Amino acid sequence: MTTQRQAGHAIVVSSGGLDSTTLAYWLQANGTGRLTLLGIDYGQRHRVELSRLTTLAQALDAECVILDLRRLRPVLSGTALIDEQATVPAGHYTDGSMRATVVPNRNALLLDIAVALAISVKADTVAFGAHAGDHPIYPDCRPSFLYAYRRMAAVANEGLTVSGFQVIAPFMDMTKADIVRLGADLGVPFADTWSCYAGGARHCGRCGTCTERKEAFVLARVPDPTDYESPETPCT
Amino acid sequence: MTTQRQAGHAIVVSSGGLDSTTLAYWLQANGTGRLTLLGIDYGQRHRVELSRLTTLAQALDAECVILDLRRLRPVLSGTALIDEQATVPAGHYTDGSMRATVVPNRNALLLDIAVALAISVKADTVAFGAHAGDHPIYPDCRPSFLYAYRRMAAVANEGLTVSGFQVIAPFMDMTKADIVRLGADLGVPFADTWSCYAGGARHCGRCGTCTERKEAFVLARVPDPTDYESPETPCT
Repeated sequence: MTTQRQAGHAIVVSSGGLDSTTLAYWLQANGTGRLTLLGIDYGQRHRVELSRLTTLAQALDAECVILDLRRLRPVLSGTALIDEQATVPAGHYTDGSMRATVVPNRNALLLDIAVALAISVKADTVAFGAHAGDHPIYPDCRPSFLYAYRRMAAVANEGLTVSGFQVIAPFMDMTKADIVRLGADLGVPFADTWSCYAGGARHCGRCGTCTERKEAFVLARVPDPTDYESPETPCT
Repeated sequence: MTTQRQAGHAIVVSSGGLDSTTLAYWLQANGTGRLTLLGIDYGQRHRVELSRLTTLAQALDAECVILDLRRLRPVLSGTALIDEQATVPAGHYTDGSMRATVVPNRNALLLDIAVALAISVKADTVAFGAHAGDHPIYPDCRPSFLYAYRRMAAVANEGLTVSGFQVIAPFMDMTKADIVRLGADLGVPFADTWSCYAGGARHCGRCGTCTERKEAFVLARVPDPTDYESPETPCT
């Protein structure tokens, strides 16, 4: 993990999941004075994740902004994360079938909303939780995306951002198991975070992201407090 | 104007204004087989412009998608284009006071939605109407922004866009007077387009964008059909 200069006020692109929650804890532990968790409902089936944000924000003494942008659904159609008719693929998160869970242009959109908010409230950091495990499936989680995004946002908002403004993804080179280990050290309330893509009331334990979550706890040798419908331990 | 390879289906980021409407006519005249006008209500005071889109789309035999994203208002606050309490500056559109009309990160956000829609419907072009007159005030209308945005979008959506996908801004090096001349040649129904930022039922004739519109018609030597509250001709 690269050591980043810590700043006064960070907007954290937050899903209520394990990665973005650990990111918020990490920012606070590294001296960020003010945190805003930004959750965006773009019509994802697993919007239950957003209901976790208020609880997580309270535990962190952070602000919480949840935006209802479900009107974006028709624009983002054709992905299993949004389309109620499509099947969320079960299996390993590195399988080719997981491409059905790619939402077109999602991270650029989420980051652009976060950057606009940062400019409006004069925050100096936007942070998001992309990590190395995302790279094979999600093109907008790769380091090359982060670099291209930073350049674009700097040009688009020249003269508008506060001095030292930065877009960071401190977990970019870490695995999810690394994040679980870090989160355990930081006291992240893992049981309050949400990963499952299937849209049920409990973690299904079968979809790609449940599989990834289970595997990360096993590899990190950290007890997994998640309440899965299918709790079998994955082969790692 | 750079000659662009014309494509099958273009998503046009449309405000109902003079520039984006002329752009749609230009795309059609240059062989684009299918057009979708994408209008986004992000809480702008001048959302009357969007009501023109349906009429303009009918005249072009184009599809029309208008998204109500007014929930973005709190994120984009602090600009006179959205804040009902702020004063929309009168005067010349090159004045420093026009910086009050800058919406943070707006064009990246609008383009992101257009790119996501293009991926969903397998369109091969996203077009927006930035022109040379915008450059001094709006950092996200400059050529450097276009280049950085293209790079970012290509990395973010690698493997998702159709072959030959492009983000274009064919008027980037033209003045608004050039666009009026081009629009007159193409038969654009200028009277049906909307420019005013003030949010009234008629063009105010005093705000920066009304001043720019008036001046463009004078410089282009094209009759201005706009119904202004203050119809005095600007000094050019």
